[in-house]
Amino acid sequence: MTRIIKLAVIPGDGIGPEVIEQANRVLDAVLEGGDVVLDRTEFALGAQRFLETGETFPESEQAAIAGQDAILFGAVGGVPGDPRLQHANIERGLLLKLRFDFEHYANVRPCTLFPGVVSSLAEPGDVDFVVVREGTEGPYAGNGGRLRPGTHAEVATEVSVNTAFGIERVVRYAFETALTRQRKKLTWVHKTNVLVHAGATWQRIVQTVAAEYPEIAVDYMHVDAATIFMVQDPSRFDVIVTDNLFGDILTDLAGAIGGGIGLAASGNINPDGTFPSMFEPVHGSAPDIAGKQLADPTAAILSAGLMLDHLGLVSDGERLRSAVRADLASRGAATRSTGAIGDAVIAQLMPRGA
Amino acid sequence: MTRIIKLAVIPGDGIGPEVIEQANRVLDAVLEGGDVVLDRTEFALGAQRFLETGETFPESEQAAIAGQDAILFGAVGGVPGDPRLQHANIERGLLLKLRFDFEHYANVRPCTLFPGVVSSLAEPGDVDFVVVREGTEGPYAGNGGRLRPGTHAEVATEVSVNTAFGIERVVRYAFETALTRQRKKLTWVHKTNVLVHAGATWQRIVQTVAAEYPEIAVDYMHVDAATIFMVQDPSRFDVIVTDNLFGDILTDLAGAIGGGIGLAASGNINPDGTFPSMFEPVHGSAPDIAGKQLADPTAAILSAGLMLDHLGLVSDGERLRSAVRADLASRGAATRSTGAIGDAVIAQLMPRGA
Ligand SMILES: CC(C)[C@H](C(=O)O)[C@@H](O)C(=O)O
Ligand SMILES: CC(C)[C@H](C(=O)O)[C@@H](O)C(=O)O
Repeated sequence: MTRIIKLAVIPGDGIGPEVIEQANRVLDAVLEGGDVVLDRTEFALGAQRFLETGETFPESEQAAIAGQDAILFGAVGGVPGDPRLQHANIERGLLLKLRFDFEHYANVRPCTLFPGVVSSLAEPGDVDFVVVREGTEGPYAGNGGRLRPGTHAEVATEVSVNTAFGIERVVRYAFETALTRQRKKLTWVHKTNVLVHAGATWQRIVQTVAAEYPEIAVDYMHVDAATIFMVQDPSRFDVIVTDNLFGDILTDLAGAIGGGIGLAASGNINPDGTFPSMFEPVHGSAPDIAGKQLADPTAAILSAGLMLDHLGLVSDGERLRSAVRADLASRGAATRSTGAIGDAVIAQLMPRGA
Repeated sequence: MTRIIKLAVIPGDGIGPEVIEQANRVLDAVLEGGDVVLDRTEFALGAQRFLETGETFPESEQAAIAGQDAILFGAVGGVPGDPRLQHANIERGLLLKLRFDFEHYANVRPCTLFPGVVSSLAEPGDVDFVVVREGTEGPYAGNGGRLRPGTHAEVATEVSVNTAFGIERVVRYAFETALTRQRKKLTWVHKTNVLVHAGATWQRIVQTVAAEYPEIAVDYMHVDAATIFMVQDPSRFDVIVTDNLFGDILTDLAGAIGGGIGLAASGNINPDGTFPSMFEPVHGSAPDIAGKQLADPTAAILSAGLMLDHLGLVSDGERLRSAVRADLASRGAATRSTGAIGDAVIAQLMPRGA
């Protein structure tokens, strides 16, 4: 029986379309000969769309995307400083709107240093952790404002909103993730000594949920200290759970540790299945190198692999990752084009059922 | 004519007293034979004091410290998880209270990789920047609270408060700092695409002040991207100015880049001179190694050097730094005790006026 998966594709801006093109090619190659068919609908959203039409994220398109099974997302954002984008906020109006409205509360960002990847920062084997970043609240809530803007008496506030509801669901997801891993270790990261209110709520909930998972070893780390451990001793991390902003910062750093942001994949997961989950490389739209076939599509390809796992196609996801691993291990010093990397990953794919 | 400088010394907890002892020894050696005399008053504050007396920071002691010319601060904080400290908050009640009440709005944290210091992360010469961290507002304001604590409906908020007044003074200080440096470059770091209110205020003020400093090259970076550049290309930074929380995170990472947090010094500066400025190592109290003479006092010693500069004793500050540099360049692989490092720095001191 053929299974049809409805896939929304949002290539976005800059290098987004180039890397998503390769992710789609790899997806097709992985699924070839199987009983799954992707039914893709492409949505032209992002800074480019805004510049052309003035629209950021029309409701009708959001409704159409809500009806899909998953979302493959490239990157959004125009050229920094473009005056025409000064009053647009594509990040808040599109990317964060998708994460918030579709309840992508578990932003999952694995960090592995694959054999063959050269990093001055760590050895392969020392780096194998996953960050579960809260995706729907915290300092990203968008609450706040400006009083007396433009004057000497201006005051701007940003309100981090943290709910027991929101924290518990992501903490629980992180414990479940830790259960599936060999080391069964969970580190929660916050800044409890300064952000005492949110810190207390996080602490209470982590402790409460931890009682249900006696097999998981739990520790705590301040976010500032976590950056030091990440560069000096990444092997101490297995699963990290943290708030939206700390997760944003730590996962870019983790990208650098894991051999570069060109390899960092992510899933914006709605574990309850009430809306489609979304898979995107951690990197941005990099307009400076866009359209030149200079971008590494590996992060986008690995994000497609996370999507396969999420859709229950774990052995296909594994075949995709094996191909990426084989390609990384045999990469020389020569730079290859975006398309050539896609070709190489496809060439490394093991036949189905092999 | 003898100049008497009134110095408040707060050794604090854990390794604080050990490292401050060496900083004081080096200070005495540096100033010996000159016309400056330190009139020290020691204040026993921190977790230990709290455990013994229940007091965090009595008003009378705050008033006494306010009357000094400068503060030398070790580190505060008890053993993590100590139940007796559960309802104490020494960080907020003492350290942050000092920074806030004494208007330490420029938290200055230089990051230099000294020759001889081995870092897998960078080469000496590539790392020479200073972070000017806002010290009196932002997410550290302490505004916020918990609604329905302990229930499923709990909501905790943390309000980041950002004023034109507070931002302008630290931004101006950072531009003045950039003026004194060779590269004359200022990078401001924020997360303007998500924290749009505070981001807009920061942006407006940076742009306004920048117009007064045409000789300074200004650029902007998101905080997440800044962590990547810090580990992959630290040479691109000269002066960084950023908010209180981003500065906290970035300067721990910078400590790792600069050869380890045992070398990272800081000044909590009140540039207006209305209250004494405070000088402290970036590291914490590290209770696990306390009392064993295992801590590196270099960060405390370099902090004392920043204090000398601030007090106008720049040539003494330079002699102190030269001695530290000479010691670092000749450090072998052998570990030395806290006291032995103090001895070695003193032995490297050039005679006054040499
Ligand atoms: C583009 C931006 C809004 C986004 C974030 O801050 O979450 C990005 O940095 C990320 O990590 O996915
Ligand atoms: C101890 C803590 C309150 C402090 C801070 O967050 O500022 C420390 O991390 C620092 O960087 O000086």
